[in-house]
Amino acid sequence: MVIPSLIGHKRDGHALQPAEWGELIREYTAGRVPDYQMSALLMAVVWRGLTPEELAALTDAMIDSGDRLRFDGFAQPRVDKHSTGGVGDKVSLLLAPMVASCGVAVPMMSGRGLGHTGGTLDKLESIAGFRTGLTLAETRAQIERLGCAMIGQTPEIAPADKRLYALRDVTGTVESIPLIAASIMSKKLAEGLNGLVLDVKTGSGAFLPEPARALELAQTMIGLGQVRGCPTVALLTAMDRPLGRACGNALEVEEAIEGLRGDGPADLMEVTYALGVEMLLLAGASPNAAAARQRLEESVTSGRALQKLAGVIEAQGGNPAVLDDPSVLPQAAEVEVFRAPRDGVIAAVEPRRIGRAIIELGGGRRTIEDQIDPSVGFVIPAKPGDRVKAGEPLASVFARDEAGAALGLKALGEAIVIKNAGKLTPLITHRVTADSVTELA
Amino acid sequence: MVIPSLIGHKRDGHALQPAEWGELIREYTAGRVPDYQMSALLMAVVWRGLTPEELAALTDAMIDSGDRLRFDGFAQPRVDKHSTGGVGDKVSLLLAPMVASCGVAVPMMSGRGLGHTGGTLDKLESIAGFRTGLTLAETRAQIERLGCAMIGQTPEIAPADKRLYALRDVTGTVESIPLIAASIMSKKLAEGLNGLVLDVKTGSGAFLPEPARALELAQTMIGLGQVRGCPTVALLTAMDRPLGRACGNALEVEEAIEGLRGDGPADLMEVTYALGVEMLLLAGASPNAAAARQRLEESVTSGRALQKLAGVIEAQGGNPAVLDDPSVLPQAAEVEVFRAPRDGVIAAVEPRRIGRAIIELGGGRRTIEDQIDPSVGFVIPAKPGDRVKAGEPLASVFARDEAGAALGLKALGEAIVIKNAGKLTPLITHRVTADSVTELA
Repeated sequence: MVIPSLIGHKRDGHALQPAEWGELIREYTAGRVPDYQMSALLMAVVWRGLTPEELAALTDAMIDSGDRLRFDGFAQPRVDKHSTGGVGDKVSLLLAPMVASCGVAVPMMSGRGLGHTGGTLDKLESIAGFRTGLTLAETRAQIERLGCAMIGQTPEIAPADKRLYALRDVTGTVESIPLIAASIMSKKLAEGLNGLVLDVKTGSGAFLPEPARALELAQTMIGLGQVRGCPTVALLTAMDRPLGRACGNALEVEEAIEGLRGDGPADLMEVTYALGVEMLLLAGASPNAAAARQRLEESVTSGRALQKLAGVIEAQGGNPAVLDDPSVLPQAAEVEVFRAPRDGVIAAVEPRRIGRAIIELGGGRRTIEDQIDPSVGFVIPAKPGDRVKAGEPLASVFARDEAGAALGLKALGEAIVIKNAGKLTPLITHRVTADSVTELA
Repeated sequence: MVIPSLIGHKRDGHALQPAEWGELIREYTAGRVPDYQMSALLMAVVWRGLTPEELAALTDAMIDSGDRLRFDGFAQPRVDKHSTGGVGDKVSLLLAPMVASCGVAVPMMSGRGLGHTGGTLDKLESIAGFRTGLTLAETRAQIERLGCAMIGQTPEIAPADKRLYALRDVTGTVESIPLIAASIMSKKLAEGLNGLVLDVKTGSGAFLPEPARALELAQTMIGLGQVRGCPTVALLTAMDRPLGRACGNALEVEEAIEGLRGDGPADLMEVTYALGVEMLLLAGASPNAAAARQRLEESVTSGRALQKLAGVIEAQGGNPAVLDDPSVLPQAAEVEVFRAPRDGVIAAVEPRRIGRAIIELGGGRRTIEDQIDPSVGFVIPAKPGDRVKAGEPLASVFARDEAGAALGLKALGEAIVIKNAGKLTPLITHRVTADSVTELA
C-alpha cells in the first residue's frame, strides 16, 4: 500500500477501495502509518467526502480495530441513545435509568466534554466515587444484572476511533459528516445493540447548526446502523438555547435527579420522553408511541427510574446519598444572581457562550489534561420568548470565587439577548427513520 | 497561535493573515508545529488555494527561514534558470556555462531527480569527484572568480522549504500551484539574483500537463519574482516527448558536452538558446534577442562555453577529462538496440514511461536513500512525426545487465507508439512576462 498515492487519489476526488480503507485503518492503528499522512488524508476526506461504500468500509474497519460487547445468550433487548452534543444536555442521566426500568437494557457508552459542549462522563463523575471506566466484562455483567451501565469508551472498543478522534481534534478535521458518522457509529455498533436512537442537535449551539446538515448526518448514521443489524431512528432537536435550566456538571446531575422525581423542566422532560419512546419502540417493548410514553411516565411517577439510577450509582462505586441529598454534590463557593438589564423579551440564550463560560469557570477542559471543577456553571430558567422586566432575576452563576462570579455574570450578559421581541423555536423538529423524514414542528 | 483554528479557517476557504503565515513557518521550522498539523493545513491549501497576499507571506517566510547568497559589492549581473522538470532535460548543463561565458554570472542551484523526472545534481555527480554540496561562502567565492557555480540547495537556503517539501512528497500535497511556486521561488529568491528565467514544461511528461495550469504556475512565479526585485520571464516548452536524445544521468552529461561542442540535438539546442536569450536580456547583457542569440552561438563555436564548463568542473572537484573523453563517465555493461516493430509514423514517445524505466533500471530513486547508477538510461533519436520502417533502429537501452536491458526494451516498446499518423508538437509555445503572454507556436 503506497500511502501518498492513496492520499492523492482521494485528493483528486476518487474513491478508495473498501480493502484499502481496511488496510489503512489496520496499519494506522498498529502505528505503521504516521499521523502526518493520516491527517492529510482526513483533510482530503473533509474536502471530497466519502462514497457510501467508503464510509461503510471505514466504519467496519474502525469497529474491527477493537472488540465488541457480546451478549450471547442474553435475551433482553438492548438499545442506546447518542446525542451529537449540546449545552445543558443531561438527557442521558434520566433516559438510561428510565428505559432500563421499563425492561430494556441500556449499555450507555458516553463521552467527555468536547469544545463548548458538556459530556455525560464528566457529569457522572461529579458524584463522589462514580467509576466510568468499566471493562467490557464488567459492563456486560452489570447489564445482565441491572439492565443498565453508564460507561466511557473502553480501550477495547474501536481503538482506531480513539486515535483518529484525537488527531482530528487538533488538525481541523472534525467537521465532516462521514467522519463524524463513522466515529459515532463505530462505537455504538460495537455495543451489540438491537436498536439505536440519535438525538441530532440543530441551531447555533450544535456542531452542525444548519438543519439540512444535521439531517444529512442523521441519515448517514441511520444508513450505517440499518445495514449492520441495528435499526436506528433520529430526532432533530433544538440547541439554539440550553436544554433545561442547569448548565454545568454537578448542577446538571441535580437537575436530572429532580427530573426523575417528577420536577424536571418541561423542555428537558419532553426531549427525554420523546427519545425514550423511540427506544422502547425499537426494543419492541411497547406496542405504540402512546403506550411507550405512558410506561416511561410511570417509571418516573412510580419511582422505579430513580431506583434504577440508585442501583447504577451503587454498582459503579458512586455515593447513592446524592439522590436524597443533592448537597453532597460539590458546591460552588460563590453564587450570584443575574438580573434583566432592561424590559423586553428574551431573544436568545446563546448556548455556545454559556458552554465557553463553563470552561472559563473551570468546569470544562481546554486541553485533554485539564482537571475540571464539577461545581461551577449556571442555572438559567429564562428562555427565548419570555417577557421580562428590568431587575428581574433571570439566571444564577455558580463559581469558585468572586472573579469567577464576575466572569459568569459577564457571560450571561452576553449570552442572554433582550430585545423588543423574541420567540422560542420548536423543541423537536424532525423524526428521521431509514425510509422517512417527518416534520414534527 | 491556535493551530487547529488556523487549519479550520483555511479549510473553510478563508485567508490567513500574513503574520499568521510568518509565525506558522517560523514555528514549524523550529519544530514547534508537528508535521501532522502542517500536512492537514497543506491539504487545505491544495483544496482552497492561497490568495496573492498569503502566497507572498508564505514565500517570504520560507526565504526568511534561512540565509541568502549576498553579493554586496559584486557588480556583475546574476541570473538563473529554473525548469519544472522533465525527461532528457539537460539544459542546465549547457546553459549555465554558455551564459556565464557571456559575462553574466549564473549561481545555478538545482535539485535531484523527483518522481519520473531527472535532476541536474544527479547528472553532475556522474562526473567522478564532482561536488555539488558547496557552502554559501564557497558558492559566492566561485561565482566571483568564475561567474558560475552549479550547486544543490545548501542547508542555509530556505530550510523551511526543505522540510515542507519532504512532507509534501509523502502526503499527496505536491500538486498545488501556490505551494509549487512558493517552493521554487523561495529558493531562487534567496540566490540574490537580478533576473530569473523559468522553463515551465507542458504535456504528458510535465508535473502540470495542461498548458492552462502551466501558464498559471508561470504567472504565479513571475508575480512573486517581480515584486521582490527579481524580474522573471517564463517560456512554456514541450514535455510530451523527451528533450534531446539522451535520457539518464551520464548519457545526458555526454549529450550536453556534445551540445557545447556544436553537435547537440536540434531541439535541445533550441530550448537552451531560447532560455539563454532571456537570461542575457534580463541581465542587460545584450541589446536585443537577435544579438543575444548570436552571442550565445558564438560562445559555443568559439569553445568559450565548453572552457567555462571545464573551469566549473575543476573548481568543484570533478574530472575535467570528461570533456575530451566521455568514456571516463560510468559505462553501462549492456547496450541493446530497440527496433521499430512495424512500419508507420511515431505517434508518441511517452516521457513518463521513459522516466519510470530509468528508475527501474537503477538510474533514479524510489526512496530518498536510494543510490543511483549513473550509467543506465536510453538514447532515443526517434521523435513523434518520424516515419519509420519495421526493423529500423529507433533507440538504445543502457543497462547494468541483461535483465535490465530486457526491461528497458519493454519500456521502449510501451513508450514509443507507432501508428499510421503522428506529428511533432511545437517545442516552445509561449513566452510569459509580468505583463504579457505571447503565443510562439
